[in-house]
Amino acid sequence: MTARLLERLAGSGVRWTADPSIVDSRRTDRSGWQPAGRPLAVVFPESVPEVRRTLRVADELRVPVVPRGAGTGLAGGAGAGAGSLVLDLTGMNRILDISPDDGLAVVQPGVITADLDRAAARYGLRYAPDPASVAISTVGGNIATNAGGLRCAKYGVTADAVLGLDVVLADGRLLHTGRRTVKGVAGYDLTRLFVGSEGTLGVVVGATVRLLPLPDATATVAASFASVADAAAGAAAVLAARIRPAMAELLDGPTLRAIDPARTDGALLLVQTDGAGAAAEASTVEDVLARHGATVAVTTDPAEAERLLAVRRAALPALERLGRPLIEDIAVPRGRLAEATSAVQAIGERTGVPVYVVAHAADGNLHPLLVVDPAADTIPAPAWRAAEEIFQLALRLGGTMTGEHGVGVLKRAWLRRELGGANHDLQRDLKNLFDPHGILNPGKAI
Amino acid sequence: MTARLLERLAGSGVRWTADPSIVDSRRTDRSGWQPAGRPLAVVFPESVPEVRRTLRVADELRVPVVPRGAGTGLAGGAGAGAGSLVLDLTGMNRILDISPDDGLAVVQPGVITADLDRAAARYGLRYAPDPASVAISTVGGNIATNAGGLRCAKYGVTADAVLGLDVVLADGRLLHTGRRTVKGVAGYDLTRLFVGSEGTLGVVVGATVRLLPLPDATATVAASFASVADAAAGAAAVLAARIRPAMAELLDGPTLRAIDPARTDGALLLVQTDGAGAAAEASTVEDVLARHGATVAVTTDPAEAERLLAVRRAALPALERLGRPLIEDIAVPRGRLAEATSAVQAIGERTGVPVYVVAHAADGNLHPLLVVDPAADTIPAPAWRAAEEIFQLALRLGGTMTGEHGVGVLKRAWLRRELGGANHDLQRDLKNLFDPHGILNPGKAI
Repeated sequence: MTARLLERLAGSGVRWTADPSIVDSRRTDRSGWQPAGRPLAVVFPESVPEVRRTLRVADELRVPVVPRGAGTGLAGGAGAGAGSLVLDLTGMNRILDISPDDGLAVVQPGVITADLDRAAARYGLRYAPDPASVAISTVGGNIATNAGGLRCAKYGVTADAVLGLDVVLADGRLLHTGRRTVKGVAGYDLTRLFVGSEGTLGVVVGATVRLLPLPDATATVAASFASVADAAAGAAAVLAARIRPAMAELLDGPTLRAIDPARTDGALLLVQTDGAGAAAEASTVEDVLARHGATVAVTTDPAEAERLLAVRRAALPALERLGRPLIEDIAVPRGRLAEATSAVQAIGERTGVPVYVVAHAADGNLHPLLVVDPAADTIPAPAWRAAEEIFQLALRLGGTMTGEHGVGVLKRAWLRRELGGANHDLQRDLKNLFDPHGILNPGKAI
Repeated sequence: MTARLLERLAGSGVRWTADPSIVDSRRTDRSGWQPAGRPLAVVFPESVPEVRRTLRVADELRVPVVPRGAGTGLAGGAGAGAGSLVLDLTGMNRILDISPDDGLAVVQPGVITADLDRAAARYGLRYAPDPASVAISTVGGNIATNAGGLRCAKYGVTADAVLGLDVVLADGRLLHTGRRTVKGVAGYDLTRLFVGSEGTLGVVVGATVRLLPLPDATATVAASFASVADAAAGAAAVLAARIRPAMAELLDGPTLRAIDPARTDGALLLVQTDGAGAAAEASTVEDVLARHGATVAVTTDPAEAERLLAVRRAALPALERLGRPLIEDIAVPRGRLAEATSAVQAIGERTGVPVYVVAHAADGNLHPLLVVDPAADTIPAPAWRAAEEIFQLALRLGGTMTGEHGVGVLKRAWLRRELGGANHDLQRDLKNLFDPHGILNPGKAI
């Protein structure tokens, strides 16, 4: 099989390598999951026809294909083990069109998300989805996982920014979905089906994405609370005051002390408003949070805002100094935020696993971080138990085990429980319809 | 077949009738399309189990089922002909839950859209999708067609408001999709697949929908232009000024004169901004439009705003006095609005069909209205020719033949041309997967 595949690749004109050091650099993502064995080769397509040729060969020879962008995923979706072929799309990294008139961009999948955002900024526009990995992840990878980020409550997730896709199917057929319009209801919404499918239904080789106006003004509120329950109540009160914050980040006390041991507050809530009403909205936010017992700082100065938000960015690096953080990703109905946060802390105490909580508070998306011994080869049993309890909590509260990171391999065992049997069966039928030989990222996502 | 079906229905405990006058009242929608023959019966389910029982019987006997809400569709999607069974869901019309804390509502499909919006308003919230039929159409029908409306450019279409669905599949299985959270990436997005599927993949029997804050303030700008090209350029300039209007409605000169023969302006653009920055944004809009040659009126007074917007609502009734309006529904990339509007007017002149244009200007969604002789039994050939040319125009500009009304039966002949063969084939495969016996609204949508 290996020999035949390599022979066909060599004859295909597509750039590829079986060099072990390069192959090893393309077999994992940032989840920490170690697939068994080494992939056969890595292909570096530079065009849509090259992706089509590669898939035709792989489908014919029944070789599993693992598409990947920058490998920043946190669920093992881009993990590639023995016998597989890695399809590295980072070489297809051109921005093909930015149309301020139409409010959109057309990009290849390997474009770095922040590069697209910067290119849009030259027209006073922005690409709204902003996962924490924005500086290093690709638009294609963001589409494959339906990446979220900090601005979702007001501006939506990656799916909300995707107007249309070019997709190569398992058998090499090229499909165009969607269009250059915001509205459109001709046919089933295949675009949305591919977004978040983690490379299991097709390979995204092009995307038409929406660009939104860069806001003229932003205002940032930093509110320090005695407890995380108070902060969660404060976040709920902001929403009850009918504010749609552009950002509402919550950090619990343990996280704050990991960043700065001198801190004594129980939680921090960072709220950003934007647009023509930014200052007025921030003033409302300030009033609401002060009434909820917070010590509040407000600024409309961008540099000062950066300083306030630096705490949020410092969280993960600070926890990485304490051990290996496993980043969970539950989402709960936003009214259950306080309950979820307290319950997650209790799970940490019960299992003896150090748990830190940061959350996108306006959409109920919590990232409990379980810090484990970095020297351990496998994830310790108490951490698995804590993760299992956290997933169960999310489902019990009417939420999901993954708000924005994806299922990958790490959450696959819990998926059927979340979806229910009828839904999961139908998802598998869909997978078989799109990929009858099961070559596209097998063992992932569903 | 008829006898067996009626016998099984009689034994099912579900309320139904074969009374010709009632059946006739449930066989068409507002498209004007007349299906051939009379359906066998109409079923009026009052619960999810009743829908399941009905579909199990229909699937077993291979009887086509046409689900319907209020029948306000404009593409023939709810048309039901000889041999079919109509599933009238208007009796399942309860709002089951409104949760301001979670920012959502749970409803049965037969709830009138405006009733949901009014119920949300008691909590300072709103259900954002607002098709023109909002006062008489159902949430379930809106979901089936992915209905749009006036607020889409800022607040999205129906699909953007749907968090989760309960769906009965063709064989009677009950499926739950989505969740009570804004974010969630576990599994493929089946929710979005059902939205806009026009009853061909399953029957929506429940929906969890997002509610958004009612804005504290709105401001309304009415701008009168010498020509429709000027008005379209004005709309583009508003977007270029990085305003996201809550509404931007364009009416061309012929439409204005159908409403009021004394008017002499060439086009009217109605722009509404909302939220804490409403007045500031409206002031920017005013400046931009005045610079584009418009005569502009601005108000922040709700009653005065209603008076300005009354013109938009008067358009369809005014055209109905002139004949039978066929409402087209193309969407083009928003930067092509001026080009599309002029081209539509030229098509009217070339074919001799009176064409009137109203448009949701901020998202490039045009409704050319072709006025034909109401006495004619069928649509006259020149009107068909004009419609065909309008669709071709939309595709040529990178748009779609239907922005928000759906494909139904009326646009089915053009669908493959718009989607392309590979996409259309895959859509048909999906349909077969979900509905192997083809009983769900056959001959519609795809």
